[in-house]
Amino acid sequence: MNVGIFGASGQVGGVMLSLLAERNFPATQVRLFASSKSAGKKLECLGEQITIEDVDGADFTGIDIALFSMGASASLLWAPKVAASGAIVIDNSSAWRMDPEVPLVVAEVNPYELFTIPKGIIANPNCTTMIAMPVIKPLHERAGLKRVTASTYQAVSGAGIKGVAELSGQMQLLGDPSRLTMSGDVVEFKNIEVFPKPIVANVIPLAGELIDDETVEEHKFRDESRKILGLLDLSVSCTCVRVPVFTGHSISLNLEFLHPIEVEEVSSILKQAPGVELSDIPTPLSCTGKDPCFVGRIRKDHGVANGIALFVSGDNLRKGAALNALQIAEILLKEELNRN
Amino acid sequence: MNVGIFGASGQVGGVMLSLLAERNFPATQVRLFASSKSAGKKLECLGEQITIEDVDGADFTGIDIALFSMGASASLLWAPKVAASGAIVIDNSSAWRMDPEVPLVVAEVNPYELFTIPKGIIANPNCTTMIAMPVIKPLHERAGLKRVTASTYQAVSGAGIKGVAELSGQMQLLGDPSRLTMSGDVVEFKNIEVFPKPIVANVIPLAGELIDDETVEEHKFRDESRKILGLLDLSVSCTCVRVPVFTGHSISLNLEFLHPIEVEEVSSILKQAPGVELSDIPTPLSCTGKDPCFVGRIRKDHGVANGIALFVSGDNLRKGAALNALQIAEILLKEELNRN
Repeated sequence: MNVGIFGASGQVGGVMLSLLAERNFPATQVRLFASSKSAGKKLECLGEQITIEDVDGADFTGIDIALFSMGASASLLWAPKVAASGAIVIDNSSAWRMDPEVPLVVAEVNPYELFTIPKGIIANPNCTTMIAMPVIKPLHERAGLKRVTASTYQAVSGAGIKGVAELSGQMQLLGDPSRLTMSGDVVEFKNIEVFPKPIVANVIPLAGELIDDETVEEHKFRDESRKILGLLDLSVSCTCVRVPVFTGHSISLNLEFLHPIEVEEVSSILKQAPGVELSDIPTPLSCTGKDPCFVGRIRKDHGVANGIALFVSGDNLRKGAALNALQIAEILLKEELNRN
Repeated sequence: MNVGIFGASGQVGGVMLSLLAERNFPATQVRLFASSKSAGKKLECLGEQITIEDVDGADFTGIDIALFSMGASASLLWAPKVAASGAIVIDNSSAWRMDPEVPLVVAEVNPYELFTIPKGIIANPNCTTMIAMPVIKPLHERAGLKRVTASTYQAVSGAGIKGVAELSGQMQLLGDPSRLTMSGDVVEFKNIEVFPKPIVANVIPLAGELIDDETVEEHKFRDESRKILGLLDLSVSCTCVRVPVFTGHSISLNLEFLHPIEVEEVSSILKQAPGVELSDIPTPLSCTGKDPCFVGRIRKDHGVANGIALFVSGDNLRKGAALNALQIAEILLKEELNRN
């Protein structure tokens, strides 16, 4: 299987390269692509130094699986061209997710959507939705999901390398953090670019632009959850909040079901759910670099008839992006082998 | 009016001292009290150096208003003694809040509870509840509150000076924060004492001990909200989460009402509500050192008939504790003057 990694020099690209080795992915050849800015640089992959090719002007012939993490506009431009030369594209951007001819897949949740890939493109959901789905799906199958109320705690790496640099820079600039403690006399940060407010020692209840009275991120969470779960009129209210965490998205979830479900049953279902691990105190730090979504604080929400509250943390770069793309590639490979 | 500040050397005590000056509080005499550990130290108050007295062995005669921020066990011991010598105690701890003979008061929300003070003790609610109440109360009066779903973003100063020191220490220890970015290989923190996990670059969905399947903080939020709003069977589901913020608690709220209420009306009610200020992006940093609770992201929660989602940030040391206590003292003073 020949693999192309598009956006190889980015954060998710980096995680992808380590995961290829870690998972012993059966790649016969790996080619790396990026924009002209990173083309020519070398990256290590499976023990070899590979030169990044400029995506513009490259010949994509022979690539079986193209793993895309280039952002939405580059993906709109390049994914169809790469698919046209015979590859299956697995895309991490938002470009194709809501296209009715593009399956939107979480490997453990709806792999059956991979049976038909009309455009040769498969979409990965956004990292927040991704982390919620392996937890929500098996509970929905048992009790029928009616309503989701979510408040997120999203890491800066969800906004790319620039987001990480902004938090990191502000942390170093802060010097003596106790300056912030008891007065509003806050250090004047000069590097406020990615986020609309300082992110160090702060939380920002606005992740992405506002579309109407909800942000892009909040719309994604609703739209993608509905598509993945096949519940096209699911009630979803989500507040997306950026927090000063480098990696690991977390979600405080209140779930309402059509049918009664007890806390003990929720725990036992989630204990067996693929891609899910129970944890007394799930946190972003403890899930960083790990595959599963960690779930805990499972309890009754007494506010409604069949309510459950819980808290999930998952690595937004790993399961939230790179890992899920590779898991999809592995499913495709297995099917291919079955067919041969 | 003679004022006693009990727990003068603590975080809230410090804010109290600055607020006395800032608000031009008409104190004829200020006495400072603390445990033997801090007794003998001097603190500046209204331009004078005042020596902290040891609460144990002190004569409380002549104090009119006693502002208590000593923690629950000290308050259980000392508040009745101070009240017995003729002072009205305004207590910041959790010790007296649920006592049916103790009014639990948010100055803008239920000042009418101050008409009867059977024990000579008034309780301040906990800082998270305090920040939500000025926003929730006027909406409840208009549309009838039915259910509250809350996820919090609580500052480390809510756990005292030790909490601030723990985050501050971990921030300095982190050195190059990018070490955390893309791997689970986390710096080994040695100062994990106040919080159950590292708090830097992390969020912890467990604030305070678990009582049953909910934490002390989550129980407080429900119980105190019910008492303050006079809604003894209000549905409340709350997930309390500690975040790496020094000062400023925030809450993502989903409110369900008995009667229809439009977003425009919510905004216009909150615009006029005392102690509340509208903000496009309320954040803990921007509310630090400020009096009001900042509220924004007001929108429909389409998941229920009469649902509203919004986000609140407020200074947990100021409005969340010291300011509210002083506001109560000011109300008592005004009543006293009216009576004379």
